[in-house]
Amino acid sequence: MKTRAAVAFEAGKPLEVVELDLEGPKAGEVLVEVMATGICHTDAYTLSGKDPEGAFPAVLGHEGAGIVREVGPGVTDVAVGDHVIPLYTPECRTCEYCLNPKTNLCQRIRTTQGQGVMPDGTSRFSYKGEKILHYMGTSTFSNFTVLPEISLAKIRPDAPFEKVCYVGCGVTTGLGAVMFTAKAEPNCTAVVFGLGGIGLNVIQGLKLIGARQIVGVDLNPGKVEMAKRFGMTDFVNPKDHGENLVGHLVELTGGGADYSFECIGNVNVMRQALECCHKGWGTSVIIGVAPAGAEISTRPFQLVTGRNWRGSAFGGARGRTDVPGIVDMYMEGRIDIDSLITDVMPLEDINKGFDLMHEGKGVRSVVTY
Amino acid sequence: MKTRAAVAFEAGKPLEVVELDLEGPKAGEVLVEVMATGICHTDAYTLSGKDPEGAFPAVLGHEGAGIVREVGPGVTDVAVGDHVIPLYTPECRTCEYCLNPKTNLCQRIRTTQGQGVMPDGTSRFSYKGEKILHYMGTSTFSNFTVLPEISLAKIRPDAPFEKVCYVGCGVTTGLGAVMFTAKAEPNCTAVVFGLGGIGLNVIQGLKLIGARQIVGVDLNPGKVEMAKRFGMTDFVNPKDHGENLVGHLVELTGGGADYSFECIGNVNVMRQALECCHKGWGTSVIIGVAPAGAEISTRPFQLVTGRNWRGSAFGGARGRTDVPGIVDMYMEGRIDIDSLITDVMPLEDINKGFDLMHEGKGVRSVVTY
Repeated sequence: MKTRAAVAFEAGKPLEVVELDLEGPKAGEVLVEVMATGICHTDAYTLSGKDPEGAFPAVLGHEGAGIVREVGPGVTDVAVGDHVIPLYTPECRTCEYCLNPKTNLCQRIRTTQGQGVMPDGTSRFSYKGEKILHYMGTSTFSNFTVLPEISLAKIRPDAPFEKVCYVGCGVTTGLGAVMFTAKAEPNCTAVVFGLGGIGLNVIQGLKLIGARQIVGVDLNPGKVEMAKRFGMTDFVNPKDHGENLVGHLVELTGGGADYSFECIGNVNVMRQALECCHKGWGTSVIIGVAPAGAEISTRPFQLVTGRNWRGSAFGGARGRTDVPGIVDMYMEGRIDIDSLITDVMPLEDINKGFDLMHEGKGVRSVVTY
Repeated sequence: MKTRAAVAFEAGKPLEVVELDLEGPKAGEVLVEVMATGICHTDAYTLSGKDPEGAFPAVLGHEGAGIVREVGPGVTDVAVGDHVIPLYTPECRTCEYCLNPKTNLCQRIRTTQGQGVMPDGTSRFSYKGEKILHYMGTSTFSNFTVLPEISLAKIRPDAPFEKVCYVGCGVTTGLGAVMFTAKAEPNCTAVVFGLGGIGLNVIQGLKLIGARQIVGVDLNPGKVEMAKRFGMTDFVNPKDHGENLVGHLVELTGGGADYSFECIGNVNVMRQALECCHKGWGTSVIIGVAPAGAEISTRPFQLVTGRNWRGSAFGGARGRTDVPGIVDMYMEGRIDIDSLITDVMPLEDINKGFDLMHEGKGVRSVVTY
């Protein structure tokens, strides 16, 4: 079949919207009509060429929502007509990782997914006879895409695609870091570094679980208003504190934060996030993706005196298990996604979505097909 | 009263055994006759002058066992004749830290303890009219010492002092890192870096909780025999693996260790300890004390992909609560301390104990009064 798609033919070049050839689903695979997709920093990172694992030409996009249109042989967990969210972190429920309650990092199809191909080693996309790679196992910048069955979360049919597509990455990454990775408790204190989309979702996760104090840290005061609306109780601009940012945060939180979250991808900020945590029990969660080769550092004394340094990928969420529940949270009005979707555009304008992100305008752009 | 003590008059000089004046216990304080004390690397570190917080002249020693000889006004939890282990990490059971189940780092008397004085800001020791400082709130290199009531764990009266003094630091630090900090589970895999006293106690802790594989890493093959006796299942000499030590350990443990423990105090080894942990869930615990100013580093990817970096002080044990139980474990034959006490000497020979430690001979030297 044919599908419209925004293709990354080369690193550093804008996407091109073209018509691709798409092979139907093989065994264990599913054809999904993507109805909407968010544009995420990770797509931009790969497109920039800085991602050492980025491969081209490829169909990017990993934050989608759509409808199952065809299933391959042996598919049992989704059926034609099901509404689904593609999962770049699959959940096979049988691998060593899925069977360990401490992780969400299903490894079943990791190698082929990283290579931009389906589990059988081939791609379903081609353009004028030339192979086009998949991306993160999802490729939601194509109107139709093929995924392994284990990479789909089935969601309720009344959820609006152009909103819940954001659950496919940003919302789950932020909320999940609070709920699944940090397992933050009611009445805790927290510091959130970076008030972009991830930071705002961390903040609403903290509000949801009953945090007592939610400190937001960002260089841009223009982000204060929305962050307050999402639950931020205190704002700190690093520019106002110079070398004493950590000291100020420790004082503001009455001895250090119970939890901190780095939502930027800056290794210096990661250190500040750890060191502003409370002695004895503070946990710092790294969410942001650092540049290739960058390293975090601290004095080991920070850990020996009880701080805990960890990271979170896809919010520690098990996609098939947890994503439907997050969609429910949105549908029940317990979390806000609408305010975060600041631009909606057709596929033809997808590069404008990237421009808005680079300019720091809005929070999330969504493409609807 | 008078008491014999080994005094550190100056950094870098041997201890001098002299007779000190000792004031009796004030309110909330207890006079203890120290019956035996271990000699620990931390004493040597402070004596060397490298400890930025070291202050002189002082009575060092923090790994003792003894008998309560007098109690000051208001003391309720110990009585004359009780057998006790001094605690350099006290347990007041009322401070913010004691009331938080995530930490053992009671802060009640931290400031004065760090300054080498009792909670009222004064010292009980003097020599020819000159003040001599306390050390770690314990000063077990004195035959009689005065401690706050909250710094004493009451133990069973039939436990031999010259063995269970080791529970005051090394045994608890090693076992506790497994039981209280890592909370390692049966059937786990673990890598232990450094097969000195702490490493051996980590190993017997791992054996006790039912670890499946216990890999010991040390440059000295002479340590293999005892480590095997304590439960080590595999030995790795870093000299045999060069740059590929981490890769070898990951392979040996079938994908990485569930837990690793750094028992050396070397920041490069701390990195190896983290990176040999299993993706998704491996936890690395730093126990060793690094040189002042040294920093640990890694790529944040190590944490984002599920590894957890933390530290342990006094094994995460709450002294008054947990130390008596560890003494019971020894008395019931469930842990071995006897093999670890490789030299016993009178106070007059205490500098020989330091020499043995520096020469790497034996595991633990104990002074009996």
